[in-house]
Amino acid sequence: MRTHLCGEVTAELAGQAVFLCGWVDRRRDLGGLIFLGLRDRAGIVQVVIEPDSDAFADAEKLRNEFCVRIEGEVRMRPESQWNENMATGRIEVVATNVELLNASAPLPLLMTDEDGEEIRLKYRYLDLRRQRMQRNMRIRSELNHSIRGTLRELGFTEFETPILTKATPEGARDYLVPSRVHPGEFYALPQSPQLFKQLLMMSGMDRYYQIARCFRDEDLRADRQPEFTQLDMEMSFVDEQGVQDTAEALVRAAFADVLNVELPAEFPRLAWRDAMERYGSDKPDLRLPLQLVSVDEHVKHVDFRVFSGPASDDSQRVAALRVPGGAQFSRKQIDEYTDYVSRYGAKGLAWIKVNDADTGLEGLQSPIAKFLDDAAWSGIAAATGVQTGDILFFGAGDWGVTSTFMGQLLVKTGRDLDLAEGDWAPLWVTDFPMFEWDGDEQRYFAMHHPFTAPNDADPAALKADPAASLSRGYDLVLNGNEIGGGSIRIHRQDMQAAVFELLGIGEDEAQEKFGFLLEALKYGCPPHGGIAFGLDRIAALMAGEPSIRDVIAFPKTTTAQCVLTDAPSAVPATLVDELGLALKPKA
Amino acid sequence: MRTHLCGEVTAELAGQAVFLCGWVDRRRDLGGLIFLGLRDRAGIVQVVIEPDSDAFADAEKLRNEFCVRIEGEVRMRPESQWNENMATGRIEVVATNVELLNASAPLPLLMTDEDGEEIRLKYRYLDLRRQRMQRNMRIRSELNHSIRGTLRELGFTEFETPILTKATPEGARDYLVPSRVHPGEFYALPQSPQLFKQLLMMSGMDRYYQIARCFRDEDLRADRQPEFTQLDMEMSFVDEQGVQDTAEALVRAAFADVLNVELPAEFPRLAWRDAMERYGSDKPDLRLPLQLVSVDEHVKHVDFRVFSGPASDDSQRVAALRVPGGAQFSRKQIDEYTDYVSRYGAKGLAWIKVNDADTGLEGLQSPIAKFLDDAAWSGIAAATGVQTGDILFFGAGDWGVTSTFMGQLLVKTGRDLDLAEGDWAPLWVTDFPMFEWDGDEQRYFAMHHPFTAPNDADPAALKADPAASLSRGYDLVLNGNEIGGGSIRIHRQDMQAAVFELLGIGEDEAQEKFGFLLEALKYGCPPHGGIAFGLDRIAALMAGEPSIRDVIAFPKTTTAQCVLTDAPSAVPATLVDELGLALKPKA
Repeated sequence: MRTHLCGEVTAELAGQAVFLCGWVDRRRDLGGLIFLGLRDRAGIVQVVIEPDSDAFADAEKLRNEFCVRIEGEVRMRPESQWNENMATGRIEVVATNVELLNASAPLPLLMTDEDGEEIRLKYRYLDLRRQRMQRNMRIRSELNHSIRGTLRELGFTEFETPILTKATPEGARDYLVPSRVHPGEFYALPQSPQLFKQLLMMSGMDRYYQIARCFRDEDLRADRQPEFTQLDMEMSFVDEQGVQDTAEALVRAAFADVLNVELPAEFPRLAWRDAMERYGSDKPDLRLPLQLVSVDEHVKHVDFRVFSGPASDDSQRVAALRVPGGAQFSRKQIDEYTDYVSRYGAKGLAWIKVNDADTGLEGLQSPIAKFLDDAAWSGIAAATGVQTGDILFFGAGDWGVTSTFMGQLLVKTGRDLDLAEGDWAPLWVTDFPMFEWDGDEQRYFAMHHPFTAPNDADPAALKADPAASLSRGYDLVLNGNEIGGGSIRIHRQDMQAAVFELLGIGEDEAQEKFGFLLEALKYGCPPHGGIAFGLDRIAALMAGEPSIRDVIAFPKTTTAQCVLTDAPSAVPATLVDELGLALKPKA
Repeated sequence: MRTHLCGEVTAELAGQAVFLCGWVDRRRDLGGLIFLGLRDRAGIVQVVIEPDSDAFADAEKLRNEFCVRIEGEVRMRPESQWNENMATGRIEVVATNVELLNASAPLPLLMTDEDGEEIRLKYRYLDLRRQRMQRNMRIRSELNHSIRGTLRELGFTEFETPILTKATPEGARDYLVPSRVHPGEFYALPQSPQLFKQLLMMSGMDRYYQIARCFRDEDLRADRQPEFTQLDMEMSFVDEQGVQDTAEALVRAAFADVLNVELPAEFPRLAWRDAMERYGSDKPDLRLPLQLVSVDEHVKHVDFRVFSGPASDDSQRVAALRVPGGAQFSRKQIDEYTDYVSRYGAKGLAWIKVNDADTGLEGLQSPIAKFLDDAAWSGIAAATGVQTGDILFFGAGDWGVTSTFMGQLLVKTGRDLDLAEGDWAPLWVTDFPMFEWDGDEQRYFAMHHPFTAPNDADPAALKADPAASLSRGYDLVLNGNEIGGGSIRIHRQDMQAAVFELLGIGEDEAQEKFGFLLEALKYGCPPHGGIAFGLDRIAALMAGEPSIRDVIAFPKTTTAQCVLTDAPSAVPATLVDELGLALKPKA
């Protein structure tokens, strides 16, 4: 039906006859001529219909978004009319025939960034015609292509694992699928292919990957989707470095292939504890040139319990954040920051404006300066490197809570002042604690998942001090987003049993839920490890989109609905009955 | 942990130190030495542990399937011991160190083709260690790789469409997923991405593909899986030839890339009616050199109502099948064939053995020869090209039923006599009827699906004689298997409405089920068409496996169960309650 794509008609084709198909992006009538911007996936080309042309009568009927086929000849525009912003900007196509393939009713949305989320999703097929969305979808497709190419070169085999499977142990709620053949029983949709990929290592498949759909029936938050996509990988006979090298090669190649961006040759690494100490986050955005500094040793002695108490307690801390130029913050801005950190558990936010860094305590403006002596201030000033015109914020209290709210403050002030440097800052975070203690439930939780190997040599070493145990897990962080996470897995049955025990998973429960895994570990399971990447997030970062919804062709709303097709929806009662179920009357 | 893969240690490495990881495939103790076959994904290498080696004590503990790491030196074997069947057959690795990575309990299965289906699936992770299964999985991975490469070169964009979606219209039963956020409402798992891919064409995405998981809650037949994988494609601004050319390029490249097989440069084509006439099947296996021949005109006049009746009725037929060499069939064999065709609706099976093709009726042995005259027989003989030693089978009656059972007989006799010629016989089947009339329900059904375009120019032409209308659908058949099916779709709203009407889908129902599609067709929908391939089947054909289960890593049983993980299974009542559902008491 066509000889060329619209966006590919360039000056080299001048004089040639072409057939083009596409949509009327814009129609202008000018000096008796009709000008069409004809659009397809490759771009837009200008089509001219001259008044004496046979095509003129047909062209007069065209409106925006009509779908047409054009026969015409490529002609150079006069040089004064060249548009160098477009690949097709030096030519136009003089139409000899205009065939209407399909008319269009007036569009129900503006097709600009002004359109609201709901109407964009309801008419997604129109929203996706926009250049921004076309580009997003192609970035995603190219990202997949790059990933697969790299992995195949590295000897990975692509696998598919089941979607209809058994409840998985990631901790979130599973989507359940009732069985008609086995009424009253349910499949679960996978939260990840974790156990299957480990089984494939036990199969000797050596290097597995899958671009896998995963599902979580979570209470919905801003940018979560009920179904999302992971790049899932697993390798046998590797240690942490082996997995991380592979992951880096993959990400580096993807950014080069898709965006022509060169990422650092080696990604920096940070132990989890250092990340919390210095950035108050397990996913620091290293583009921001701000760090938290512990000032405990300088304020232990001061007569200010809010500081001296935490400073003398190993489970607490006093953390300072220097914000360059922050002395200009108004009282109102400081109040807003105080409010902001209170959402993350801060009971207050101390601050010192440094109006003159050369005059010691004299040069400070602060409600708390009066509690400090020269020794304290000179210690703080040296540790933070504070300069005239800066502000220092202080958080004090529980180590985790304080680190976290100060980390949030770091990001917020950094963004507000537009301090980010560079475009891309990847980072490995490593050495996570093996377990988190939950005071409410009085038990340990796995910080990664229960198949992550501890750094301990054997079960006895692990059990001796579980709280101190570090895991062999690692996260890959990009610009403050966790884009991947993985670990070396447990490959010995005794260690797996010990971890289940520490997590309070009794033998019966372990047998029922993971019996097949424990059984599989009996038969020469190789050492193995892997990683999973959040592909939606990586694609969104590449596309410069804040929301993953803009890199998913047909996303759900924040209430897990597809407003385009109207899902979920009611079904005939007979279908429910066949599943061995009954609808409960509505409350 | 390793410097090489086991299967890659060849003579070029002689004299070098290597580290290898893998499994003990076999251990032999011979002349004081220990020989290990060490296996990984790349193959097997012979490891020797000499009695004076430090590694000897460790090696003595090894049993089959123990997972080990070997340090050693590559040494040429004496030429008399070369095994040219193995890439590693000229060398051996003299171990200097043997590190046990993990022991193995004795295996619960034989790891041969003797293992039953149930135990293979329960211990799938062990079953997948077999070379046959390793090869199958790699064939599948390479098939995907080839497909994606071809499609990207042809300008296709890869998309993901939702798994949690609305009931789809393919006709089989949907798997339903209850919503917790919207109790009493359900998502459906897609039977195919059909509507989404059409919407993407309306988005101007132009060329879409996806390797897509699909789901059907069907009553289970021999080689069906509840979840299966399609290569799904769609193109804008194409006709049948455009889609078929692309599909052929894809399949041809896949066979070349994966199997190094050259398929024909152009696949033959057969109209559906001719396929039924000549092969009694809409998916003929062209490797079999047998055809059905209509002999109606030769038996119209005979005094044998079983033939003369159908021969004179346009809705019936008399079909003959010549089986070369079939005169040797025993009475018992013929009875078995008669039994066989009765399963497909045959009321009987007439036959003629040709003991001498040169003596007319005299040379025949048959219960029905007495009803034939010379004219009838010479007509039949000429039409079928029968020769001495052949048998002719005859079916008579309803055109569809007769074609079908004679087609089944064609395949059965052809396979029994091992008549297949050549390895690969692809074929396009085209020109399907648009509708099938269901006498019981007194209504039309869509032969493909309700979005397939008819060959008619407009709705009025279609409605004038729906039974005579042909669709713009096409199937790709390989060796008697339908490996792909597709069509040019309806792109005009008035035609889509007419087809819904003919299918007895009322306006309200159409609006409720497909309202979004009808709406989308208003906005300049381009002409488009596509195809979907059954990837499991293609992989199985490539691997030479009769069952698709052997090219799926973790398949379900014929009762839709995963015996490895025990899915489906019961879930806590609270989870069911949260979905707004209750379990019905068991009957």
